Amino acid sequence: MDPGSALRSARDDGAVSEIAENSDRQSKGSLTVVGLGPGEAHWLTPAAQAAIEAATDLVGYDPYLARIPAREGQTRHGSDNRVEIERAGHALRLASAGRTVAVVSGGDPGVFAMAAAVFEALEAGNPAWRDIAITVEPGITAMLAAAARTGAPLGGDFCAISLSDNLKPWEVITTRLKAALAADFVICLYNPISKARPWQLGEALALAATQRSPETPVIFARAVGRPDEALRILPLTEAVEAAGTADMATLVMIGASTTRLIAREGQRPYVYTPRSVTKSPCVTSQGRT
Amino acid sequence: MDPGSALRSARDDGAVSEIAENSDRQSKGSLTVVGLGPGEAHWLTPAAQAAIEAATDLVGYDPYLARIPAREGQTRHGSDNRVEIERAGHALRLASAGRTVAVVSGGDPGVFAMAAAVFEALEAGNPAWRDIAITVEPGITAMLAAAARTGAPLGGDFCAISLSDNLKPWEVITTRLKAALAADFVICLYNPISKARPWQLGEALALAATQRSPETPVIFARAVGRPDEALRILPLTEAVEAAGTADMATLVMIGASTTRLIAREGQRPYVYTPRSVTKSPCVTSQGRT
Repeated sequence: MDPGSALRSARDDGAVSEIAENSDRQSKGSLTVVGLGPGEAHWLTPAAQAAIEAATDLVGYDPYLARIPAREGQTRHGSDNRVEIERAGHALRLASAGRTVAVVSGGDPGVFAMAAAVFEALEAGNPAWRDIAITVEPGITAMLAAAARTGAPLGGDFCAISLSDNLKPWEVITTRLKAALAADFVICLYNPISKARPWQLGEALALAATQRSPETPVIFARAVGRPDEALRILPLTEAVEAAGTADMATLVMIGASTTRLIAREGQRPYVYTPRSVTKSPCVTSQGRT
Repeated sequence: MDPGSALRSARDDGAVSEIAENSDRQSKGSLTVVGLGPGEAHWLTPAAQAAIEAATDLVGYDPYLARIPAREGQTRHGSDNRVEIERAGHALRLASAGRTVAVVSGGDPGVFAMAAAVFEALEAGNPAWRDIAITVEPGITAMLAAAARTGAPLGGDFCAISLSDNLKPWEVITTRLKAALAADFVICLYNPISKARPWQLGEALALAATQRSPETPVIFARAVGRPDEALRILPLTEAVEAAGTADMATLVMIGASTTRLIAREGQRPYVYTPRSVTKSPCVTSQGRT
Protein backbone atom coordinates (compact mmCIF):
# COMPACT_ATOMS: atom_id res chain seq x y z
CA MET A 1 0.00 0.00 0.00
CA ASP A 2 1.55 3.33 -0.95
CA PRO A 3 1.95 5.96 1.78
CA GLY A 4 -0.77 8.25 0.57
CA SER A 5 -3.54 5.89 -0.45
CA ALA A 6 -5.61 6.84 2.59
CA LEU A 7 -5.89 10.26 0.98
CA ARG A 8 -7.40 9.20 -2.32
CA SER A 9 -10.80 10.42 -1.36
CA ALA A 10 -9.75 13.07 1.14
CA ARG A 11 -11.19 16.52 0.63
CA ASP A 12 -10.41 18.26 3.89
CA ASP A 13 -7.66 18.76 6.44
CA GLY A 14 -9.22 16.24 8.80
CA ALA A 15 -8.24 13.30 6.63
CA VAL A 16 -4.66 14.47 6.45
CA SER A 17 -4.09 13.93 10.14
CA GLU A 18 -4.03 10.22 9.27
CA ILE A 19 -0.69 10.74 7.59
CA ALA A 20 2.41 10.15 9.68
CA GLU A 21 4.38 13.29 8.93
CA ASN A 22 8.03 13.05 8.12
CA SER A 23 7.99 9.28 8.43
CA ASP A 24 10.49 9.06 5.61
CA ARG A 25 12.87 11.93 4.93
CA GLN A 26 13.78 10.27 1.64
CA SER A 27 10.18 10.20 0.44
CA LYS A 28 9.70 11.07 -3.20
CA GLY A 29 6.97 13.57 -2.47
CA SER A 30 6.98 16.83 -4.40
CA LEU A 31 4.97 19.99 -4.64
CA THR A 32 4.45 22.12 -7.74
CA VAL A 33 2.58 25.39 -7.61
CA VAL A 34 0.98 25.61 -11.03
CA GLY A 35 -0.26 28.68 -12.85
CA LEU A 36 -3.32 27.84 -14.95
CA GLY A 37 -3.22 31.19 -16.71
CA PRO A 38 -6.43 33.15 -17.16
CA GLY A 39 -9.31 31.46 -18.85
CA GLU A 40 -9.09 28.57 -21.21
CA ALA A 41 -6.50 25.89 -21.77
CA HIS A 42 -4.98 27.67 -24.77
CA TRP A 43 -3.09 29.90 -22.31
CA LEU A 44 -1.91 27.01 -20.14
CA THR A 45 1.77 26.23 -20.76
CA PRO A 46 2.82 22.66 -21.65
CA ALA A 47 4.97 22.65 -18.49
CA ALA A 48 1.97 23.51 -16.30
CA GLN A 49 -0.13 20.92 -18.14
CA ALA A 50 2.53 18.26 -17.52
CA ALA A 51 2.70 19.12 -13.81
CA ILE A 52 -1.06 18.74 -13.51
CA GLU A 53 -1.01 15.40 -15.34
CA ALA A 54 1.81 14.05 -13.17
CA ALA A 55 0.12 14.95 -9.88
CA THR A 56 -1.44 12.35 -7.61
CA ASP A 57 -3.17 15.17 -5.73
CA LEU A 58 -4.56 18.50 -6.86
CA VAL A 59 -5.01 21.20 -4.23
CA GLY A 60 -6.78 24.47 -4.89
CA TYR A 61 -9.67 26.85 -4.77
CA ASP A 62 -12.71 24.99 -6.15
CA PRO A 63 -13.30 27.14 -9.29
CA TYR A 64 -9.69 26.56 -10.39
CA LEU A 65 -9.97 22.80 -9.83
CA ALA A 66 -13.18 22.88 -11.88
CA ARG A 67 -11.12 24.01 -14.90
CA ILE A 68 -9.08 20.78 -14.85
CA PRO A 69 -10.55 17.64 -16.47
CA ALA A 70 -10.99 14.73 -14.07
CA ARG A 71 -8.28 12.08 -14.21
CA GLU A 72 -8.47 8.59 -12.80
CA GLY A 73 -6.42 8.00 -9.66
CA GLN A 74 -5.97 11.72 -9.04
CA THR A 75 -7.41 13.14 -5.82
CA ARG A 76 -8.82 16.65 -5.60
CA HIS A 77 -8.59 18.72 -2.45
CA GLY A 78 -10.84 21.70 -3.05
CA SER A 79 -11.24 24.61 -0.69
CA ASP A 80 -12.68 28.05 -0.23
CA ASN A 81 -10.88 31.20 -1.39
CA ARG A 82 -10.03 32.54 2.05
CA VAL A 83 -7.78 29.81 3.39
CA GLU A 84 -4.57 30.13 1.41
CA ILE A 85 -2.17 29.33 4.24
CA GLU A 86 -4.19 26.33 5.44
CA ARG A 87 -4.41 25.09 1.85
CA ALA A 88 -0.64 25.52 1.48
CA GLY A 89 0.01 23.61 4.72
CA HIS A 90 -2.31 20.85 3.56
CA ALA A 91 -0.39 20.57 0.28
CA LEU A 92 2.97 20.47 2.09
CA ARG A 93 1.72 17.71 4.40
CA LEU A 94 0.58 15.66 1.41
CA ALA A 95 3.95 16.13 -0.33
CA SER A 96 5.81 15.30 2.88
CA ALA A 97 3.89 12.04 2.99
CA GLY A 98 5.20 11.11 -0.44
CA ARG A 99 2.46 12.41 -2.71
CA THR A 100 3.05 14.27 -5.98
CA VAL A 101 1.09 17.41 -5.31
CA ALA A 102 0.05 20.20 -7.66
CA VAL A 103 -1.31 23.35 -6.04
CA VAL A 104 -3.32 25.07 -8.74
CA SER A 105 -3.69 28.81 -9.01
CA GLY A 106 -5.29 31.10 -11.58
CA GLY A 107 -3.01 33.26 -13.72
CA ASP A 108 0.55 33.18 -12.46
CA PRO A 109 0.93 31.61 -9.02
CA GLY A 110 3.61 34.14 -8.01
CA VAL A 111 1.43 37.22 -8.57
CA PHE A 112 -1.05 37.71 -5.72
CA ALA A 113 -1.72 33.97 -5.71
CA MET A 114 -0.67 30.71 -4.07
CA ALA A 115 3.15 30.65 -4.39
CA ALA A 116 3.86 33.12 -1.57
CA ALA A 117 1.35 31.30 0.66
CA VAL A 118 3.21 28.01 0.09
CA PHE A 119 6.55 29.55 1.06
CA GLU A 120 5.01 31.26 4.09
CA ALA A 121 3.60 27.91 5.23
CA LEU A 122 6.94 26.24 4.50
CA GLU A 123 8.88 28.78 6.59
CA ALA A 124 6.52 28.54 9.54
CA GLY A 125 5.90 24.80 9.35
CA ASN A 126 7.56 21.47 10.01
CA PRO A 127 11.33 21.79 9.31
CA ALA A 128 11.20 18.46 7.45
CA TRP A 129 9.11 20.15 4.77
CA ARG A 130 12.27 21.90 3.55
CA ASP A 131 13.35 18.57 2.02
CA ILE A 132 10.32 18.57 -0.28
CA ALA A 133 11.14 19.35 -3.91
CA ILE A 134 9.12 22.52 -4.53
CA THR A 135 8.70 23.93 -8.03
CA VAL A 136 6.73 26.91 -9.24
CA GLU A 137 5.33 26.74 -12.79
CA PRO A 138 4.68 30.24 -14.11
CA GLY A 139 1.50 31.21 -15.93
CA ILE A 140 0.05 34.10 -17.89
CA THR A 141 -0.95 36.60 -15.21
CA ALA A 142 -4.12 38.66 -15.62
CA MET A 143 -2.40 41.94 -16.49
CA LEU A 144 -0.57 40.33 -19.41
CA ALA A 145 -3.80 38.85 -20.77
CA ALA A 146 -5.67 42.14 -20.29
CA ALA A 147 -2.86 44.05 -21.96
CA ALA A 148 -2.75 41.64 -24.91
CA ARG A 149 -6.49 41.90 -25.47
CA THR A 150 -6.48 45.69 -25.57
CA GLY A 151 -3.24 46.46 -27.42
CA ALA A 152 0.00 47.24 -25.62
CA PRO A 153 -0.83 49.32 -22.54
CA LEU A 154 2.20 47.88 -20.68
CA GLY A 155 4.62 49.24 -23.30
CA GLY A 156 6.28 51.45 -20.69
CA ASP A 157 7.24 51.03 -17.03
CA PHE A 158 4.43 49.68 -14.86
CA CYS A 159 3.50 48.38 -11.45
CA ALA A 160 1.08 45.88 -9.97
CA ILE A 161 -0.73 46.57 -6.70
CA SER A 162 -3.24 44.37 -4.91
CA LEU A 163 -6.08 46.57 -3.66
CA SER A 164 -6.99 44.04 -0.99
CA ASP A 165 -6.45 45.45 2.46
CA ASN A 166 -6.93 42.08 4.13
CA LEU A 167 -3.18 41.60 4.51
CA LYS A 168 -1.87 45.17 4.50
CA PRO A 169 -3.18 48.49 5.81
CA TRP A 170 -5.05 50.73 3.36
CA GLU A 171 -2.46 53.41 4.15
CA VAL A 172 0.26 51.24 2.58
CA ILE A 173 -1.85 50.85 -0.56
CA THR A 174 -2.49 54.58 -0.94
CA THR A 175 1.18 55.35 -0.30
CA ARG A 176 2.11 53.01 -3.12
CA LEU A 177 -0.60 54.38 -5.40
CA LYS A 178 0.60 57.94 -4.84
CA ALA A 179 4.20 56.96 -5.56
CA ALA A 180 3.16 55.10 -8.72
CA LEU A 181 1.05 58.04 -9.91
CA ALA A 182 3.84 60.56 -9.28
CA ALA A 183 6.36 58.36 -11.10
CA ASP A 184 3.93 57.95 -14.04
CA PHE A 185 3.79 54.16 -13.99
CA VAL A 186 0.98 52.33 -15.75
CA ILE A 187 -0.83 50.86 -12.71
CA CYS A 188 -2.38 47.38 -12.66
CA LEU A 189 -4.85 46.82 -9.84
CA TYR A 190 -5.41 43.22 -8.74
CA ASN A 191 -8.22 42.23 -6.35
CA PRO A 192 -9.92 45.57 -7.05
CA ILE A 193 -13.20 45.05 -5.25
CA SER A 194 -15.24 42.47 -3.37
CA LYS A 195 -18.41 42.35 -1.31
CA ALA A 196 -16.35 42.91 1.82
CA ARG A 197 -14.26 45.67 0.19
CA PRO A 198 -16.74 47.74 -1.82
CA TRP A 199 -15.16 51.24 -1.75
CA GLN A 200 -11.42 50.72 -2.26
CA LEU A 201 -11.40 50.75 -6.08
CA GLY A 202 -13.47 53.93 -6.23
CA GLU A 203 -11.10 55.63 -3.83
CA ALA A 204 -8.05 54.46 -5.76
CA LEU A 205 -9.46 55.76 -9.06
CA ALA A 206 -10.48 59.05 -7.43
CA LEU A 207 -6.91 59.39 -6.17
CA ALA A 208 -5.64 58.74 -9.69
CA ALA A 209 -7.97 61.46 -10.98
CA THR A 210 -6.24 64.04 -8.77
CA GLN A 211 -2.94 63.26 -10.53
CA ARG A 212 -3.71 62.22 -14.09
CA SER A 213 -5.66 63.76 -16.92
CA PRO A 214 -9.45 63.06 -17.03
CA GLU A 215 -8.94 61.41 -20.44
CA THR A 216 -6.40 58.87 -19.17
CA PRO A 217 -7.50 55.46 -20.50
CA VAL A 218 -8.59 53.01 -17.81
CA ILE A 219 -9.16 49.36 -18.70
CA PHE A 220 -11.67 47.16 -16.89
CA ALA A 221 -10.78 43.66 -18.07
CA ARG A 222 -13.12 41.08 -16.66
CA ALA A 223 -12.65 37.30 -16.96
CA VAL A 224 -10.22 37.63 -19.87
CA GLY A 225 -10.03 34.39 -21.83
CA ARG A 226 -13.26 33.00 -20.43
CA PRO A 227 -16.68 32.83 -22.14
CA ASP A 228 -17.95 35.73 -20.00
CA GLU A 229 -15.02 37.98 -20.91
CA ALA A 230 -15.93 41.69 -20.83
CA LEU A 231 -13.60 44.53 -21.72
CA ARG A 232 -14.21 48.21 -21.23
CA ILE A 233 -11.96 51.16 -21.91
CA LEU A 234 -13.10 54.29 -20.10
CA PRO A 235 -11.66 57.74 -19.60
CA LEU A 236 -10.53 58.14 -15.99
CA THR A 237 -13.43 60.41 -14.98
CA GLU A 238 -15.95 57.79 -16.15
CA ALA A 239 -13.93 55.00 -14.59
CA VAL A 240 -14.28 56.63 -11.17
CA GLU A 241 -18.07 56.54 -11.62
CA ALA A 242 -17.98 52.96 -12.90
CA ALA A 243 -15.84 51.54 -10.09
CA GLY A 244 -18.80 49.69 -8.60
CA THR A 245 -19.28 47.67 -11.78
CA ALA A 246 -15.94 45.87 -11.31
CA ASP A 247 -15.65 42.64 -9.34
CA MET A 248 -12.99 40.21 -8.15
CA ALA A 249 -12.64 38.78 -11.66
CA THR A 250 -11.74 42.22 -13.01
CA LEU A 251 -8.22 43.48 -13.65
CA VAL A 252 -8.18 47.28 -13.65
CA MET A 253 -5.39 49.10 -15.45
CA ILE A 254 -4.80 52.86 -15.20
CA GLY A 255 -2.83 54.32 -18.09
CA ALA A 256 0.25 56.51 -17.68
CA SER A 257 0.26 60.11 -18.92
CA THR A 258 1.63 58.78 -22.22
CA THR A 259 -0.94 55.98 -22.73
CA ARG A 260 -2.89 56.54 -25.96
CA LEU A 261 -5.82 55.23 -27.95
CA ILE A 262 -5.84 54.32 -31.63
CA ALA A 263 -9.38 54.70 -32.95
CA ARG A 264 -10.85 52.02 -35.22
CA GLU A 265 -14.05 52.17 -37.19
CA GLY A 266 -16.82 50.21 -35.50
CA GLN A 267 -14.47 48.54 -33.04
CA ARG A 268 -12.95 49.15 -29.65
CA PRO A 269 -9.86 51.33 -29.93
CA TYR A 270 -6.44 49.87 -29.30
CA VAL A 271 -4.75 51.11 -26.13
CA TYR A 272 -1.01 51.43 -26.06
CA THR A 273 1.77 53.09 -24.14
CA PRO A 274 4.65 54.23 -26.37
CA ARG A 275 8.06 53.05 -25.30
CA SER A 276 9.48 56.56 -25.54
CA VAL A 277 9.24 59.07 -22.72
CA THR A 278 10.31 62.65 -23.22
CA LYS A 279 8.92 64.46 -20.17
CA SER A 280 10.07 63.85 -16.61
CA PRO A 281 7.29 62.24 -14.58
CA CYS A 282 8.07 64.61 -11.70
CA VAL A 283 7.34 67.63 -13.86
CA THR A 284 4.11 66.06 -15.10
CA SER A 285 2.96 65.28 -11.61
CA GLN A 286 3.85 68.69 -10.19
CA GLY A 287 2.16 70.36 -13.11
CA ARG A 288 -1.14 68.73 -12.23
CA THR A 289 -1.10 68.87 -8.45
CA MET B 1 -0.54 34.15 -58.04
CA ASP B 2 -1.38 35.14 -54.51
CA PRO B 3 -0.58 38.69 -53.42
CA GLY B 4 2.35 37.80 -51.25
CA SER B 5 4.20 35.21 -53.24
CA ALA B 6 6.89 37.67 -54.24
CA LEU B 7 7.75 37.80 -50.56
CA ARG B 8 8.35 34.10 -50.04
CA SER B 9 12.07 34.54 -50.05
CA ALA B 10 12.23 38.15 -48.92
CA ARG B 11 14.38 38.85 -45.92
CA ASP B 12 14.63 42.63 -45.90
CA ASP B 13 12.53 45.73 -46.34
CA GLY B 14 13.80 46.22 -49.89
CA ALA B 15 11.73 43.36 -51.22
CA VAL B 16 8.58 44.63 -49.56
CA SER B 17 8.43 47.69 -51.80
CA GLU B 18 7.28 45.28 -54.51
CA ILE B 19 3.94 44.95 -52.74
CA ALA B 20 1.17 47.29 -53.80
CA GLU B 21 0.00 48.55 -50.44
CA ASN B 22 -3.68 48.72 -49.71
CA SER B 23 -4.58 47.19 -53.05
CA ASP B 24 -7.43 45.35 -51.39
CA ARG B 25 -9.07 46.75 -48.25
CA GLN B 26 -10.87 43.42 -47.87
CA SER B 27 -7.66 41.41 -47.85
CA LYS B 28 -7.58 38.61 -45.33
CA GLY B 29 -4.19 39.62 -43.99
CA SER B 30 -3.62 39.51 -40.27
CA LEU B 31 -0.90 40.22 -37.77
CA THR B 32 -0.33 38.45 -34.48
CA VAL B 33 2.35 39.56 -32.05
CA VAL B 34 3.39 36.35 -30.36
CA GLY B 35 5.12 35.91 -27.03
CA LEU B 36 7.48 32.93 -27.15
CA GLY B 37 7.99 33.00 -23.39
CA PRO B 38 11.48 32.65 -21.97
CA GLY B 39 13.55 29.71 -23.01
CA GLU B 40 12.21 26.43 -24.19
CA ALA B 41 8.92 25.42 -25.77
CA HIS B 42 7.48 24.08 -22.51
CA TRP B 43 6.67 27.71 -21.59
CA LEU B 44 5.10 28.52 -24.97
CA THR B 45 1.31 28.62 -24.73
CA PRO B 46 -0.79 26.50 -27.15
CA ALA B 47 -2.35 29.75 -28.45
CA ALA B 48 1.07 31.18 -29.29
CA GLN B 49 2.10 27.87 -30.87
CA ALA B 50 -1.04 27.88 -33.02
CA ALA B 51 -0.42 31.46 -34.17
CA ILE B 52 3.11 30.54 -35.21
CA GLU B 53 1.91 27.47 -37.11
CA ALA B 54 -0.81 29.43 -38.92
CA ALA B 55 1.54 32.17 -40.11
CA THR B 56 2.70 32.47 -43.68
CA ASP B 57 5.37 34.92 -42.55
CA LEU B 58 7.42 35.12 -39.37
CA VAL B 59 8.97 38.47 -38.51
CA GLY B 60 11.42 38.96 -35.66
CA TYR B 61 14.83 39.38 -34.16
CA ASP B 62 17.02 36.54 -35.48
CA PRO B 63 17.65 34.72 -32.17
CA TYR B 64 13.89 34.48 -31.54
CA LEU B 65 13.24 33.14 -35.05
CA ALA B 66 15.99 30.61 -34.43
CA ARG B 67 13.89 29.11 -31.61
CA ILE B 68 11.08 28.20 -34.05
CA PRO B 69 11.41 25.00 -36.10
CA ALA B 70 11.42 25.55 -39.87
CA ARG B 71 8.13 24.94 -41.65
CA GLU B 72 7.57 24.46 -45.35
CA GLY B 73 5.95 27.42 -47.10
CA GLN B 74 6.62 29.76 -44.21
CA THR B 75 8.86 32.75 -44.86
CA ARG B 76 11.18 34.18 -42.22
CA HIS B 77 11.99 37.88 -42.03
CA GLY B 78 14.83 38.15 -39.55
CA SER B 79 16.35 41.36 -38.38
CA ASP B 80 18.69 42.95 -35.93
CA ASN B 81 17.64 43.91 -32.38
CA ARG B 82 17.76 47.69 -32.90
CA VAL B 83 15.09 48.15 -35.54
CA GLU B 84 11.81 47.49 -33.74
CA ILE B 85 9.74 50.15 -35.50
CA GLU B 86 11.07 49.24 -38.96
CA ARG B 87 10.37 45.57 -38.22
CA ALA B 88 6.85 46.45 -37.08
CA GLY B 89 6.21 48.48 -40.25
CA HIS B 90 7.51 45.61 -42.37
CA ALA B 91 5.11 43.22 -40.62
CA LEU B 92 2.16 45.61 -41.11
CA ARG B 93 2.96 45.95 -44.81
CA LEU B 94 3.04 42.18 -45.20
CA ALA B 95 -0.30 41.82 -43.39
CA SER B 96 -1.79 44.63 -45.44
CA ALA B 97 -0.82 42.71 -48.55
CA GLY B 98 -2.83 39.73 -47.38
CA ARG B 99 -0.24 37.69 -45.55
CA THR B 100 -0.82 35.93 -42.23
CA VAL B 101 1.99 37.43 -40.21
CA ALA B 102 3.37 36.45 -36.81
CA VAL B 103 5.75 38.92 -35.19
CA VAL B 104 7.69 36.90 -32.67
CA SER B 105 8.99 38.30 -29.43
CA GLY B 106 10.73 36.77 -26.42
CA GLY B 107 8.81 36.55 -23.14
CA ASP B 108 5.58 38.52 -23.29
CA PRO B 109 5.34 40.82 -26.32
CA GLY B 110 3.64 43.56 -24.28
CA VAL B 111 6.42 43.92 -21.72
CA PHE B 112 9.35 45.89 -23.16
CA ALA B 113 9.00 43.98 -26.40
CA MET B 114 7.39 44.15 -29.85
CA ALA B 115 3.69 44.87 -29.16
CA ALA B 116 4.11 48.59 -28.40
CA ALA B 117 6.35 48.96 -31.45
CA VAL B 118 3.63 47.46 -33.67
CA PHE B 119 1.01 49.89 -32.35
CA GLU B 120 3.41 52.82 -32.68
CA ALA B 121 4.03 51.87 -36.32
CA LEU B 122 0.29 51.37 -36.84
CA GLU B 123 -0.55 54.82 -35.46
CA ALA B 124 2.09 56.59 -37.53
CA GLY B 125 1.64 54.53 -40.68
CA ASN B 126 -0.73 53.97 -43.59
CA PRO B 127 -4.34 54.54 -42.38
CA ALA B 128 -5.41 51.41 -44.27
CA TRP B 129 -3.37 49.36 -41.81
CA ARG B 130 -6.09 49.96 -39.22
CA ASP B 131 -8.23 47.41 -41.06
CA ILE B 132 -5.71 44.68 -40.35
CA ALA B 133 -6.83 42.18 -37.72
CA ILE B 134 -4.17 42.58 -35.05
CA THR B 135 -3.92 40.17 -32.13
CA VAL B 136 -1.44 40.00 -29.30
CA GLU B 137 -0.72 36.56 -27.84
CA PRO B 138 0.64 36.88 -24.31
CA GLY B 139 3.63 34.93 -23.04
CA ILE B 140 5.47 34.23 -19.81
CA THR B 141 7.50 37.37 -19.22
CA ALA B 142 11.01 37.14 -17.76
CA MET B 143 10.12 38.39 -14.28
CA LEU B 144 7.50 35.65 -13.86
CA ALA B 145 9.97 32.96 -14.92
CA ALA B 146 12.70 34.37 -12.68
CA ALA B 147 10.27 34.60 -9.77
CA ALA B 148 9.08 31.02 -10.29
CA ARG B 149 12.63 29.67 -10.36
CA THR B 150 13.60 31.33 -7.09
CA GLY B 151 10.43 31.00 -5.00
CA ALA B 152 7.85 33.75 -4.76
CA PRO B 153 9.66 37.09 -4.69
CA LEU B 154 6.67 38.79 -6.40
CA GLY B 155 4.33 37.86 -3.55
CA GLY B 156 3.74 41.54 -2.76
CA ASP B 157 3.28 44.68 -4.84
CA PHE B 158 5.94 45.13 -7.52
CA CYS B 159 7.00 47.19 -10.50
CA ALA B 160 8.86 46.64 -13.75
CA ILE B 161 11.27 49.24 -15.10
CA SER B 162 13.35 49.06 -18.26
CA LEU B 163 16.83 50.38 -17.49
CA SER B 164 17.42 51.21 -21.13
CA ASP B 165 17.82 54.95 -21.62
CA ASN B 166 17.64 54.66 -25.40
CA LEU B 167 13.99 55.76 -25.43
CA LYS B 168 13.69 57.75 -22.19
CA PRO B 169 16.04 60.02 -20.28
CA TRP B 170 18.05 58.51 -17.42
CA GLU B 171 16.43 61.12 -15.16
CA VAL B 172 13.01 59.50 -15.76
CA ILE B 173 14.44 56.12 -14.82
CA THR B 174 15.98 57.35 -11.57
CA THR B 175 12.78 59.24 -10.67
CA ARG B 176 10.85 56.00 -11.06
CA LEU B 177 13.44 53.98 -9.16
CA LYS B 178 13.34 56.43 -6.26
CA ALA B 179 9.53 56.33 -6.14
CA ALA B 180 9.55 52.51 -6.26
CA LEU B 181 12.15 52.31 -3.50
CA ALA B 182 10.26 54.75 -1.26
CA ALA B 183 7.00 52.85 -1.81
CA ASP B 184 8.74 49.54 -1.01
CA PHE B 185 7.88 47.79 -4.27
CA VAL B 186 9.78 44.72 -5.36
CA ILE B 187 11.58 46.10 -8.42
CA CYS B 188 12.13 44.13 -11.63
CA LEU B 189 14.77 45.60 -13.92
CA TYR B 190 14.51 44.71 -17.61
CA ASN B 191 17.29 45.51 -20.10
CA PRO B 192 19.69 46.03 -17.19
CA ILE B 193 22.96 46.43 -19.06
CA SER B 194 24.50 46.28 -22.51
CA LYS B 195 27.80 47.11 -24.16
CA ALA B 196 26.47 50.57 -24.98
CA ARG B 197 24.97 51.04 -21.48
CA PRO B 198 27.57 49.63 -19.09
CA TRP B 199 27.03 51.73 -15.93
CA GLN B 200 23.23 52.05 -15.51
CA LEU B 201 22.64 48.84 -13.54
CA GLY B 202 25.44 49.64 -11.10
CA GLU B 203 24.00 53.09 -10.52
CA ALA B 204 20.47 51.72 -10.05
CA LEU B 205 21.66 49.16 -7.49
CA ALA B 206 23.78 51.79 -5.69
CA LEU B 207 20.66 53.97 -5.51
CA ALA B 208 18.73 51.03 -4.04
CA ALA B 209 21.48 50.57 -1.45
CA THR B 210 20.87 54.10 -0.15
CA GLN B 211 17.24 53.13 0.61
CA ARG B 212 17.14 49.42 1.43
CA SER B 213 18.98 47.21 3.88
CA PRO B 214 22.38 45.81 2.77
CA GLU B 215 20.93 42.30 3.20
CA THR B 216 18.02 42.88 0.78
CA PRO B 217 17.96 39.88 -1.58
CA VAL B 218 18.75 40.73 -5.20
CA ILE B 219 18.18 38.13 -7.92
CA PHE B 220 20.25 37.98 -11.08
CA ALA B 221 18.29 35.60 -13.30
CA ARG B 222 20.06 34.97 -16.59
CA ALA B 223 18.56 33.10 -19.55
CA VAL B 224 15.89 31.43 -17.40
CA GLY B 225 14.54 28.32 -19.10
CA ARG B 226 17.47 28.00 -21.50
CA PRO B 227 20.40 25.59 -21.29
CA ASP B 228 22.71 28.39 -20.15
CA GLU B 229 20.38 29.45 -17.31
CA ALA B 230 22.26 30.98 -14.37
CA LEU B 231 20.65 32.17 -11.16
CA ARG B 232 22.31 34.11 -8.36
CA ILE B 233 20.82 35.50 -5.18
CA LEU B 234 23.04 38.16 -3.65
CA PRO B 235 22.65 40.59 -0.76
CA LEU B 236 22.25 44.12 -2.09
CA THR B 237 25.77 45.25 -1.14
CA GLU B 238 27.29 42.38 -3.14
CA ALA B 239 24.85 42.94 -6.00
CA VAL B 240 26.16 46.49 -6.42
CA GLU B 241 29.68 45.05 -6.83
CA ALA B 242 28.43 42.33 -9.20
CA ALA B 243 26.44 44.63 -11.50
CA GLY B 244 29.00 44.26 -14.29
CA THR B 245 28.41 40.50 -14.44
CA ALA B 246 24.83 40.97 -15.69
CA ASP B 247 24.01 41.21 -19.38
CA MET B 248 21.01 41.80 -21.66
CA ALA B 249 19.74 38.26 -21.01
CA THR B 250 19.59 38.96 -17.25
CA LEU B 251 16.50 39.93 -15.32
CA VAL B 252 17.48 41.71 -12.10
CA MET B 253 15.02 41.76 -9.21
CA ILE B 254 15.50 43.87 -6.08
CA GLY B 255 13.57 42.63 -3.05
CA ALA B 256 11.28 44.81 -0.95
CA SER B 257 12.06 45.42 2.74
CA THR B 258 9.89 42.39 3.52
CA THR B 259 11.51 39.98 1.02
CA ARG B 260 13.02 36.99 2.83
CA LEU B 261 15.15 33.92 2.29
CA ILE B 262 14.36 30.37 3.39
CA ALA B 263 17.63 28.49 3.85
CA ARG B 264 17.95 24.94 2.53
CA GLU B 265 20.74 22.48 3.17
CA GLY B 266 23.08 22.24 0.20
CA GLN B 267 20.79 24.19 -2.09
CA ARG B 268 20.03 27.75 -3.08
CA PRO B 269 17.65 29.36 -0.60
CA TYR B 270 14.10 30.13 -1.65
CA VAL B 271 13.30 33.84 -1.96
CA TYR B 272 9.84 35.04 -1.16
CA THR B 273 7.93 38.17 -0.28
CA PRO B 274 5.17 37.60 2.26
CA ARG B 275 1.76 38.87 1.24
CA SER B 276 1.30 40.67 4.54
CA VAL B 277 2.64 44.14 5.18
CA THR B 278 2.51 45.67 8.63
CA LYS B 279 4.77 48.72 8.38
CA SER B 280 4.07 51.77 6.24
CA PRO B 281 6.59 51.99 3.39
CA CYS B 282 6.87 55.73 4.06
CA VAL B 283 8.04 55.14 7.59
CA THR B 284 10.49 52.51 6.39
CA SER B 285 11.89 54.81 3.78
CA GLN B 286 12.17 57.83 6.05
CA GLY B 287 13.77 55.67 8.69
CA ARG B 288 16.61 54.77 6.36
CA THR B 289 17.19 58.04 4.53
